[in-house]
Amino acid sequence: MKQALIGNVIYGQSGGPTSVINSSAYGVIKEARKYPSIINKIYAMHFGLEGLLNEDLIDLDNYSLEELKKLTNTPGAAFGSNRYKLAHYSKDEADYIKIINTLKKFNIRYLLYNGGNDSMDTIHKISEYAKKVGYELYCVGIPKTIDNDLPFIDHTAGYASAIKFIANAVSEIYLDDHSYKVGRVNIVEIMGRNAGWLTAGSLLSKLNGTAPDLIYVPEAVFNIQNFLNDVHKIYEKNKHCLVCVSEGIKDENGNFIFEMSDLKDKFGHTQLGGVANRLSKIIEKEFGYKTRAFELSLLQRANSIVPSSIDIKEAIKVGEIALKKALQGENDKIITLKRNKANGKYRIKYDLIDISLVANKEKYLPLTYINSNLNYINDSFLDYALPLIKDKDNKLFKDGLLDIFKL
Amino acid sequence: MKQALIGNVIYGQSGGPTSVINSSAYGVIKEARKYPSIINKIYAMHFGLEGLLNEDLIDLDNYSLEELKKLTNTPGAAFGSNRYKLAHYSKDEADYIKIINTLKKFNIRYLLYNGGNDSMDTIHKISEYAKKVGYELYCVGIPKTIDNDLPFIDHTAGYASAIKFIANAVSEIYLDDHSYKVGRVNIVEIMGRNAGWLTAGSLLSKLNGTAPDLIYVPEAVFNIQNFLNDVHKIYEKNKHCLVCVSEGIKDENGNFIFEMSDLKDKFGHTQLGGVANRLSKIIEKEFGYKTRAFELSLLQRANSIVPSSIDIKEAIKVGEIALKKALQGENDKIITLKRNKANGKYRIKYDLIDISLVANKEKYLPLTYINSNLNYINDSFLDYALPLIKDKDNKLFKDGLLDIFKL
Repeated sequence: MKQALIGNVIYGQSGGPTSVINSSAYGVIKEARKYPSIINKIYAMHFGLEGLLNEDLIDLDNYSLEELKKLTNTPGAAFGSNRYKLAHYSKDEADYIKIINTLKKFNIRYLLYNGGNDSMDTIHKISEYAKKVGYELYCVGIPKTIDNDLPFIDHTAGYASAIKFIANAVSEIYLDDHSYKVGRVNIVEIMGRNAGWLTAGSLLSKLNGTAPDLIYVPEAVFNIQNFLNDVHKIYEKNKHCLVCVSEGIKDENGNFIFEMSDLKDKFGHTQLGGVANRLSKIIEKEFGYKTRAFELSLLQRANSIVPSSIDIKEAIKVGEIALKKALQGENDKIITLKRNKANGKYRIKYDLIDISLVANKEKYLPLTYINSNLNYINDSFLDYALPLIKDKDNKLFKDGLLDIFKL
Repeated sequence: MKQALIGNVIYGQSGGPTSVINSSAYGVIKEARKYPSIINKIYAMHFGLEGLLNEDLIDLDNYSLEELKKLTNTPGAAFGSNRYKLAHYSKDEADYIKIINTLKKFNIRYLLYNGGNDSMDTIHKISEYAKKVGYELYCVGIPKTIDNDLPFIDHTAGYASAIKFIANAVSEIYLDDHSYKVGRVNIVEIMGRNAGWLTAGSLLSKLNGTAPDLIYVPEAVFNIQNFLNDVHKIYEKNKHCLVCVSEGIKDENGNFIFEMSDLKDKFGHTQLGGVANRLSKIIEKEFGYKTRAFELSLLQRANSIVPSSIDIKEAIKVGEIALKKALQGENDKIITLKRNKANGKYRIKYDLIDISLVANKEKYLPLTYINSNLNYINDSFLDYALPLIKDKDNKLFKDGLLDIFKL
């Protein structure tokens, strides 16, 4: 291992916050404080890339490790996130000049950026540009997205907590409906425009006997007539029906159901709203069943009330490792998680790969997890998902409220 | 204390399940097992009153106390609930005859019924009818409703867990929005048709620095123009605005906002959907701000993922006390909770009053808790609400999932 370049560290957050993005921040900062002979200062970008562009940096020396520990309890992006799109430097160099100026001014040599596929593209471009202008910079990406759609990574930090919320919320909805002899058709809309990982997570509720009856993901063509037949059959038999559906389900032409203006009930009325709302209105009109539509919305993404402690631990770890790898001279790389199933035990091995392999790419739910009727998830998915949430809940609340970190 | 009549016990659940209704069931059963010389059998009504009408009873001898303990983790109504309306026996005696026949057949002398104001009316009528026909029966009501709207009761079992969920969900929404420099207008719809107790609970999030900007409850007239002015002022200043609103807010004529067909934006378009959705659409059209509407829906009512352990303890206790009081010969009564603030410490004293004082009556949020602009809740409410959620979270999950009781 060559001698690490002496310089400062900057950490940034990007995209929609998961419930554990701040745990990765904690991992980076805690690890960085172990190398005072290399790193003099640790900064956070205030509102991600915007902070770097506007020289708006947070000096993390102002926070004790005890205070920072609360990051692991804190939803949102504690240092601020952003959705700024960086043009390629061949098209517009202005932003890159600003970024390099900020990095130089604060003697920053290590850049850790926490985000999903778009954000990885951002660091890839910054890393390339720094090389081009001869500024020695080590950029490492920290994977984060509840969508779990990054290739070459067993699962992303944030996914486990999201499905833990989803599975338990589905249990609550199931049990509430089964409180009555005659229940309703309940339709739960789960995030995921293109990938069904989150919606598949609803299958976990099967393990305490409260499974959905039907599960629809974007990877399988959604046929409205088959759906109506499925619901009809189940409801007539059980007087209960629980449907979990990805927001991004599409018809055979690839059109999103939630965007279809020609999605009409048998009376010719167009139904609007999110996909759960549209489908429930169609069922009401078609069969006269009582329905209830749910959008789990950001409560699944920001879930800090029932997080997976495994997720928190792994998120801290990817932050630590990203920092270490940057100090070891790695650049333009993203940290990966590989599953090691030796002895049937769940073990994660951390590694890293070129960011370009991940940036702007998506990983879909394998079709082997989807049943042949395209209306359910196979049990083999449980082997994948259960170890991610199989923890002792160790959440710390203070006086019943999330004990959060504040800037 | 006179000698208790030897006979069996029946317990029933009614109305929308709270997250702790099953904890009260546990309290009743656990306590009843202590009196084998008086009580031979403990039954539960299967689907509440319907079970009693159809002789559909659950024999609780089939469950160990260890198994029953899981009731305290279980959302929904584990023995089945119902919304059956019993006519007055002066109008229609048929149902009453069936009920008395079932009670006689199973030698039931103690009837514990767990519900809100409607359900209390049901037991009141059964108790009166039993007296009329000379069947010795001891009926005690166990208060339950997240709405917290029963008179003469400091708070109802279920309320604390609901506001614990609400306050923490509001924190998540606040922090997610504040992850960006420029946020949205977030409107959170909270349950409560006539009473603002639940929505007022959102104020608790103030204690970790993530308070709503505006809070509207049904007890205060909702003026749409004032609302638009409020939102405009706050968003222009902060670029964030978080609004918590009861589903049952009404205009100056007492019309529900969610029912108003003449609630139009400035372009004359009628907005449909729940109240949060309607208001957010109007703000979008009026000011062009980005908005997000949330319905916490049954996740607040069924909340078993972040329950208040104080709520669970109290719910068990009201079940225990209801059973004891019935054995002591109390009839046509409901258990009450009184707050004892000696030494500034939160203490609850359990007592009981005539059911007729509670049945079909509602308790509203005192106006002293509402600010003079009718758009916020005063801090004095925190003294009332905080002790209800101020606990150590002690939730038991098994492998990351709610470890539930099943029939």
